[in-house]
Amino acid sequence: MAPIKLDPQLEQDCINLGTINQNVLLLMNNSLIPWLILIPTNSFDNTTGNVIDEFDLLPFEQQTSLLEQINQLSAFLRKYFQIDKINIASIGNVVRQLHLHIVGRSSNDYCWPDVVWGNNKKCPWQEQQVAELIEKLEKFIPDSFQKCL
Amino acid sequence: MAPIKLDPQLEQDCINLGTINQNVLLLMNNSLIPWLILIPTNSFDNTTGNVIDEFDLLPFEQQTSLLEQINQLSAFLRKYFQIDKINIASIGNVVRQLHLHIVGRSSNDYCWPDVVWGNNKKCPWQEQQVAELIEKLEKFIPDSFQKCL
Repeated sequence: MAPIKLDPQLEQDCINLGTINQNVLLLMNNSLIPWLILIPTNSFDNTTGNVIDEFDLLPFEQQTSLLEQINQLSAFLRKYFQIDKINIASIGNVVRQLHLHIVGRSSNDYCWPDVVWGNNKKCPWQEQQVAELIEKLEKFIPDSFQKCL
Repeated sequence: MAPIKLDPQLEQDCINLGTINQNVLLLMNNSLIPWLILIPTNSFDNTTGNVIDEFDLLPFEQQTSLLEQINQLSAFLRKYFQIDKINIASIGNVVRQLHLHIVGRSSNDYCWPDVVWGNNKKCPWQEQQVAELIEKLEKFIPDSFQKCL
């Protein structure tokens, strides 16, 4: 299977953590909020041949597989961060490449209770923090998470 | 099964359209954007006995059933409105009652490409428009949609 080519905006804003099955797992490069982004492996529209860019148009089996991963990643955020609420979303008004947000929110974070989208205060993750996060993902999702080489 | 008691904020902001299976379907009372809200029937945390307010903590079967409904409602929005993108989200930082947003976005709408949350420009739906929408839902989802009496 061909590797997923990342949208330039996502590439610029995020750190590539690795894959879960064939889906790419990114970390928004903002240590103020634990914010994961899952990019589904490409599925194609049978009529147009185009890559599907809407979650509801994915094959149902792929949706349920992604759902399992959303559940795992939400549990991961809840275990390792101080989380008061999980925000899950498929938006894509600007970046059309299909991507799913799994965001751990705290009532102490900088934009609570507003949504994170459009609230751009940022503080990059340190390399050591990212390495530790990847180690934790390897322990938490041992069957399917593979770190980026 | 006891009827779902709506959060006062949702009750104030939305029009109750009816139910899909046991889930309540609301329409955000803002005709500028076709914005549906699905409220899952209550599931309870086995340990605490509390109502579950996080999507990822719902039983998987309930999640997949909701997923089917999200797919149906997205297709509905795409059929009857001028839609460039569907936004799907579970947020709940302010209203903790679990609710899922299914929003039809157009590149011509008032807050494109920003997200709808926190962008509060509103124009109420007219009664006749809501009646027509309910009729369309009855045709589009004949097996499981039941209008609010």
